[in-house]
Amino acid sequence: MTSPAAVSRAGAPAPPVLAIIGGGQLARMMAQSAVPLGVPLRLLAEAEGVSAAQVVPDTTVGDYHDLDTLREVTEGCAVVTFDHEHVPTEHLHALSEAGVACRPGPGALVHAQDKGVMRARLHHLEVPCPRNEIVAEAADVEAFALSAAGFPVVLKTTRGGYDGKGVWVVSSPEECVDAFEVARRAGVEILAEEKVDFRRELSALVARSPSGQVAAYPVVESVQTDGICTEVVAPAPGLDPDLALEAQGIAMKVAAALDVTGILAVELFETTDGRVLVNELAMRPHNTGHWSMDGAVTGQFENHLRAVLDLPLGSPEARQPWTVMVNILGGRHGALSEDLYAGYPHVFARDPRLKVHLYGKAVKPGRKVGHVTAYGDDLDDVLERARHAAAWFRGDLGMESE
Amino acid sequence: MTSPAAVSRAGAPAPPVLAIIGGGQLARMMAQSAVPLGVPLRLLAEAEGVSAAQVVPDTTVGDYHDLDTLREVTEGCAVVTFDHEHVPTEHLHALSEAGVACRPGPGALVHAQDKGVMRARLHHLEVPCPRNEIVAEAADVEAFALSAAGFPVVLKTTRGGYDGKGVWVVSSPEECVDAFEVARRAGVEILAEEKVDFRRELSALVARSPSGQVAAYPVVESVQTDGICTEVVAPAPGLDPDLALEAQGIAMKVAAALDVTGILAVELFETTDGRVLVNELAMRPHNTGHWSMDGAVTGQFENHLRAVLDLPLGSPEARQPWTVMVNILGGRHGALSEDLYAGYPHVFARDPRLKVHLYGKAVKPGRKVGHVTAYGDDLDDVLERARHAAAWFRGDLGMESE
Repeated sequence: MTSPAAVSRAGAPAPPVLAIIGGGQLARMMAQSAVPLGVPLRLLAEAEGVSAAQVVPDTTVGDYHDLDTLREVTEGCAVVTFDHEHVPTEHLHALSEAGVACRPGPGALVHAQDKGVMRARLHHLEVPCPRNEIVAEAADVEAFALSAAGFPVVLKTTRGGYDGKGVWVVSSPEECVDAFEVARRAGVEILAEEKVDFRRELSALVARSPSGQVAAYPVVESVQTDGICTEVVAPAPGLDPDLALEAQGIAMKVAAALDVTGILAVELFETTDGRVLVNELAMRPHNTGHWSMDGAVTGQFENHLRAVLDLPLGSPEARQPWTVMVNILGGRHGALSEDLYAGYPHVFARDPRLKVHLYGKAVKPGRKVGHVTAYGDDLDDVLERARHAAAWFRGDLGMESE
Repeated sequence: MTSPAAVSRAGAPAPPVLAIIGGGQLARMMAQSAVPLGVPLRLLAEAEGVSAAQVVPDTTVGDYHDLDTLREVTEGCAVVTFDHEHVPTEHLHALSEAGVACRPGPGALVHAQDKGVMRARLHHLEVPCPRNEIVAEAADVEAFALSAAGFPVVLKTTRGGYDGKGVWVVSSPEECVDAFEVARRAGVEILAEEKVDFRRELSALVARSPSGQVAAYPVVESVQTDGICTEVVAPAPGLDPDLALEAQGIAMKVAAALDVTGILAVELFETTDGRVLVNELAMRPHNTGHWSMDGAVTGQFENHLRAVLDLPLGSPEARQPWTVMVNILGGRHGALSEDLYAGYPHVFARDPRLKVHLYGKAVKPGRKVGHVTAYGDDLDDVLERARHAAAWFRGDLGMESE
């Protein structure tokens, strides 16, 4: 406990109220885990009726860029945590100074907000990363390409990118125009990175508490489609145990060095020559950890809450040999894909062991609107079940192909 | 779907809104399961801030005895379900006539509301029960005792009893005075039952949907203390497979014959001579099914929602050999036992695999305020872990004995 125990109106001790900034599906799934823990939540949502606002009674609608709004929502809360990484750093410092523990704190969060800061810090920590450099113009990109692995080169805005936005793969200096134009308008920098020759993408997820306890989840394989995570297999099939340990070790080292509290997700490339390189960091429950809600003893959302409240962490171990999570993305086929609820009769009748999570979001093409999880002893079976269900929700089955 | 698909403000199809009457912990745990299903809830709570009202934004505070209140809360809802069995039968009929599907319906629910009606129906269905008879006065009790197994005899009010209330064990006609006085004042009858010589108590839980699908959970052993369920072991250790099948068969037969929708819990005695006799029926998620939230593929609350919405049911199978649920009852020891949250550091640090469910209720001696679940391969280990955690929350450890 970071503050004197709260006292309820009846005079009995009450659990601490946890503030959450941001009303997306991550906050919604935190709320689901807060129910059994008996932890009351106070939510700042960006609009009426957004995903988490549907399930948190104590919701304020407001703008997280506004410090007064943040102060109001966190008043009387010992701890505040986040659905996303976009709260301005200076506001986090202001809240901390006012006695509200930001978890993760601004000093940690900047590494998930700014890829330039992140790369510099990981370099300092001797954590393996793709070769990279901050570049100011096309000529710098060419020089970087020459000094690294040549073209193509990956360009990323240092701030503001996610789910494939703010990322360009360029094959010549001429192709850099868009990236620099976007960066200039947004007032951010461009980070150039070598395009890694990778076998697949991995994710190492840990929960870490302020008192320093860490729980490391099994390393998973994540499949990205157009820059969006679409499928996760836990654990990563056929992963060399030494490499798995190295990936977990990187996540634990980074979490400790950056004083991360809550969930840290380290997205990695497994290179064709058998190394792991850090791709991205996220400091919140992460899409590559959704499998754990149904597949692990303690889901990532429960462990995130326990971590930010500085309670002892729950076991991150898997409950069965294989768990597969497939995202439900908004589909292209009209009626069925807009009415996710209408997908239930088929998927539930076909597979009584399937777990479905719908986020209460309006369906738009390509938008993450839910996920399904299947688990069991046979990976092929589990993959088929999860993929079928997600495809059905998306509206890609029983339709003429385009 | 029982009604035309609802349409959201944005014009896209929206999932049906489910109304729940009663704001206790059962409604709270339904709400927890409604989050991943993406099913919006509308709650009628008996007071501000009760257990379920803490986690359901769309909550009305009102009296479920008032038909206008019930109409208001269920307006636009295709289906209404219940946290308890106390809504007056005539109101359920009125709601049904207005096009709101009551699940379970009044015709089924009366068997959980009135023990006299229940016993008569089970007799008609040739379901094994303790010998029983409606009695009007002490002389009837004596006559019943003579015709059955002698004294002691169990007396129960036909309506309104629960958790040991409204039940008397009498050894002579003179001891019947209290029971008849209570019944007279409440305007209910007294049911006399033989006091069964039982080895232990069992519970057979099924989910049943309006279209007739049934999912039968493993038969569990339940331990009652002072008439309150305190501990459940799933599955019932050492239970004869034929007897387990008979118990499941009884639950499935009763659910079908009474047209139960949602969860039906059949509490049974396993007699010392190896029979099962029905003790009580409950038509809602039940304390003896709480183990399934963490221990089964599909928890009873999720299956209750799926059943009342007429969606295909989820698998009720256990995920591991043993699951033990122990209730957290309000303790007698002051500070620690009043502040359940303060119990977390010890129980979570001791047992990273423990699952805890706190209901957000004020702690009063003997009141159910939460439960813990442990699961694993070794029953003795699982029992010890769950019992230890519940005792800690109750404040019975680390204190001088009384």
